[in-house]
Amino acid sequence: MARLVLKFGGTSVADVERLRIVADRVAQVVEDGNEVAVVLSAMAGTTNQLIEWTQAMSSLHDAREYDAIVSSGEQVTIGLLAMALQEKGISARSWLGWQIPIRTDDTHSSARIEDIDGAEIVRRMGIGEVAVVAGFQGLSPNNRIATLGRGGSDITAVALAAALAADRCDIYTDVDGVYTADPRIVTAARKLDKITYEEMLEMASQGAKVLQTRSVELAMNHRVRVQVRSSFNNSPGTLVVDEEEIVEQAVVSGITYASDEAKVTLLHVADRPGVAAAVFGPLADANVNVDMIVQSASPDGTTTDMTFTVSRGDLARVQTIVEQQREAIGFQECLTDGDIVKVSVIGVGMRSHAGVAQRMFAALSDKGINIHAISTSEIKISVLISAEYTELAVRSLHSVYGLDAD
Amino acid sequence: MARLVLKFGGTSVADVERLRIVADRVAQVVEDGNEVAVVLSAMAGTTNQLIEWTQAMSSLHDAREYDAIVSSGEQVTIGLLAMALQEKGISARSWLGWQIPIRTDDTHSSARIEDIDGAEIVRRMGIGEVAVVAGFQGLSPNNRIATLGRGGSDITAVALAAALAADRCDIYTDVDGVYTADPRIVTAARKLDKITYEEMLEMASQGAKVLQTRSVELAMNHRVRVQVRSSFNNSPGTLVVDEEEIVEQAVVSGITYASDEAKVTLLHVADRPGVAAAVFGPLADANVNVDMIVQSASPDGTTTDMTFTVSRGDLARVQTIVEQQREAIGFQECLTDGDIVKVSVIGVGMRSHAGVAQRMFAALSDKGINIHAISTSEIKISVLISAEYTELAVRSLHSVYGLDAD
Repeated sequence: MARLVLKFGGTSVADVERLRIVADRVAQVVEDGNEVAVVLSAMAGTTNQLIEWTQAMSSLHDAREYDAIVSSGEQVTIGLLAMALQEKGISARSWLGWQIPIRTDDTHSSARIEDIDGAEIVRRMGIGEVAVVAGFQGLSPNNRIATLGRGGSDITAVALAAALAADRCDIYTDVDGVYTADPRIVTAARKLDKITYEEMLEMASQGAKVLQTRSVELAMNHRVRVQVRSSFNNSPGTLVVDEEEIVEQAVVSGITYASDEAKVTLLHVADRPGVAAAVFGPLADANVNVDMIVQSASPDGTTTDMTFTVSRGDLARVQTIVEQQREAIGFQECLTDGDIVKVSVIGVGMRSHAGVAQRMFAALSDKGINIHAISTSEIKISVLISAEYTELAVRSLHSVYGLDAD
Repeated sequence: MARLVLKFGGTSVADVERLRIVADRVAQVVEDGNEVAVVLSAMAGTTNQLIEWTQAMSSLHDAREYDAIVSSGEQVTIGLLAMALQEKGISARSWLGWQIPIRTDDTHSSARIEDIDGAEIVRRMGIGEVAVVAGFQGLSPNNRIATLGRGGSDITAVALAAALAADRCDIYTDVDGVYTADPRIVTAARKLDKITYEEMLEMASQGAKVLQTRSVELAMNHRVRVQVRSSFNNSPGTLVVDEEEIVEQAVVSGITYASDEAKVTLLHVADRPGVAAAVFGPLADANVNVDMIVQSASPDGTTTDMTFTVSRGDLARVQTIVEQQREAIGFQECLTDGDIVKVSVIGVGMRSHAGVAQRMFAALSDKGINIHAISTSEIKISVLISAEYTELAVRSLHSVYGLDAD
């Protein structure tokens, strides 16, 4: 017997029929002798419709009202699933964020969970009742509904698993698990049986879409064992766990790519102290996240070229801000390029193996792929290349690091 | 300056555009210097869609889950209206039933309001904030959402007006107010400026659809002045008030008709003590409401014919129950007739005027209309006639009692 939290997303709960299929699956887990809590999203499309209405009503809206509106969809799916379970003879009840309560801070529409009182749910699970919990929502200190932002239901599931001291949190998705690379471009990609929190975190922030960064962080901080698995079949998915749980660690676990970045190059920037602050200070003030930064060597000792990447959605704002700072920075020209991609090689094994970066550079060079920028962390190397080489680069690296399936 | 509760129904809040029009109207009332609370229904169609899903999921569903599901629609409209008011520079916030709280009993899906804590709303109205309150919902003793049943938003509005000691509760509808008769069949019908609670109550239970019986009862018990008015124009509607507020009381205030009843006749019932109990006991046990009852004189002293009316929706059940009791009752034949209508004449002035009933019978007789059954109360006379005479009867009575517009 185990205590499990199961999370199902919007496409799995899109209508009454699919909710019945979810109920069948939950029933199976209950009949296997487990204590079960289920976390649900709203029906696919519902939340987007609600967001559309808020935008149509008011461009600068009150986040508290926004939260009251967009949190209503989960109320429907949890009630319907509780009904479906009862119909199958399984004791179940729905729980809204404020009923548990799931306490959050007051940053409405991207609130953080501060505390979950799981005592009553644990007590009821002990007598065989399934808790069906609304994802994405909690109760703010001012007694109003607060939503958790993008990926909020995953966050609810992981936080609930921590609060209930669950043995595992199963995130049901439309993919089988976490792959060594995107299977749509690497046919030889393999599903990973296990991956460490640190790797999953890098993968999520480097472009893998299967789990949101915030839910992985939460799982890592509370040591919640997370399983990413398919809602369409019964095969085991990928376990996201502590490093110690993985006996034989590959040097590299996966290759990711992120195409939502853009490159900005400032030509002939005065090569003097304080110029980086003049460039990046105003961007930080405007909440623009700068990812990679490269400053070329100064051939004449007076000017240099500076390249950095930002989220593509921020590009227009960045251009405006940089132009406003033209005098302070003293550059000649500002070039932008949205036609780039960031390819990353990720693996905790890198810590103990030298030469991982060198192999990456050599492999790309072999294929004639030029590297515009490089950034590294302890368990990740990222390079910026032209978008047209995306597939070639990912496939080559996947093969070079021995990740291809037999 | 007055303290007002305004209630808008589903068609008035059907989309973002119509919610903007509601916001304009609320803004006008605020700018006139009033303290305002608004009660809203869900968007037209939303609640029906939600009910459909619950029915598709489970025929015998948990009323607590049903309530969680069907109460979600109001959450959307109140959030959007609060946004729309803020957009117009008016301070506003949305309130869900559990946030106020509006405490109910635990008869989920037809709960009764037990208590509303209006202190915080009154305080905020005092500093110019509009309270936008979800109709139809409250918080049950087990900390779950409870809905109030049909007409629930009107009930919320009246109960809130009582709790806030509001000067008036304005119910915005798709009609101008309460008419002396249904204007669709009586072109000479007049809008009433004022009507007493007692008359409104009789009208609501005798077929007038403008206000639900439960909300009128509540208004009467708490002496809440209710105005029924149009959401499409600014003309004053009909005030529902205490009898003392109406200086010159007409003998008859209105003529109603109800076509949702059916007549049941048991032929040759044994004329002995206990037979009425044998007929109506099992019907009461099955929660069937019996309205009018007529027992014909027994010509031979041994058998009699018994006629009664029930809601047409209950007719099939009634036939089954009566057949099951055939032996106990000892009747010869059970005839049913759904082609009947109950026409009522209503007015508090009847108390002090004799001959009102006599005039009704004479007027119907003049037109050759046969009366199948009669029932009376202190301020009402109802007759059962064939449905084909509906318009003729209502028009004749409207004229006979001097209600026709000049």
